[in-house]
Amino acid sequence: MKLDHIGIAVRSLEQALKFYRDTLALACTGIEEVPAEKVRVAMLVLGGTRIELLEPTGADSPIARFLEKRGEGIHHISLQVAGLDAHLRRLEAAGVRIIAGKGEYGAGGHRYAFLHPSSCGGVLVELVEADPSTPSRRAGLRSG
Amino acid sequence: MKLDHIGIAVRSLEQALKFYRDTLALACTGIEEVPAEKVRVAMLVLGGTRIELLEPTGADSPIARFLEKRGEGIHHISLQVAGLDAHLRRLEAAGVRIIAGKGEYGAGGHRYAFLHPSSCGGVLVELVEADPSTPSRRAGLRSG
Repeated sequence: MKLDHIGIAVRSLEQALKFYRDTLALACTGIEEVPAEKVRVAMLVLGGTRIELLEPTGADSPIARFLEKRGEGIHHISLQVAGLDAHLRRLEAAGVRIIAGKGEYGAGGHRYAFLHPSSCGGVLVELVEADPSTPSRRAGLRSG
Repeated sequence: MKLDHIGIAVRSLEQALKFYRDTLALACTGIEEVPAEKVRVAMLVLGGTRIELLEPTGADSPIARFLEKRGEGIHHISLQVAGLDAHLRRLEAAGVRIIAGKGEYGAGGHRYAFLHPSSCGGVLVELVEADPSTPSRRAGLRSG
């Protein structure tokens, strides 16, 4: 199990990139819009893991709702696992609340699930299936 | 630059360990009390980085104040850098607010600084000096 990325909800990608890309000097591997999730996303390399900046593109984006409620900050962490189904079975047996995905395919073409923060010390945790042949660029973000 | 750890504020270390250690099966490398910072800390290995669970030991702990204001969740992320002083000079020149540490030695014996969330997309960012001879076990936590 490894940390795939840390997802950070921001009001302005450009503003956040000034810090993470220009000042901290992290390499930005791409900026893209994901219409299905109503976000613009910037990915930055941080050692063996990544930072994902998420800017809403509409007021009904899950990220817009998060910003309204909590302000800017960390939205979720994403853990890459081998054998997602076995993990989900073990998690459900342990009473962990699985709130989205449950092994479906997300926008990035990878199977994923989201675990409820109440089960994870207040942290929204995404599990994304590891795929050694095509490294995950980003994971699905169906949940807010 | 690499992610040293993700710090998560929790009300109960035991409860959070049930998820992170027992259910997710992350290896816990130690639990310790840090009286100077009024926290109990559990460290868990997550691939090439770590999760730091922080439980307050008193009502005047910075973590207790965070929990009161925000509830459980991610408190900070810590980035390991080589050449902390050069980083701090560049950050200050770029207008980043440095709120604690500024290169002082933290509880773990490592030099550190905390950057204000308003400069970092809502995220409290710690910088900790990399020390290849004695890998950082945990960094100072002067700021809440």
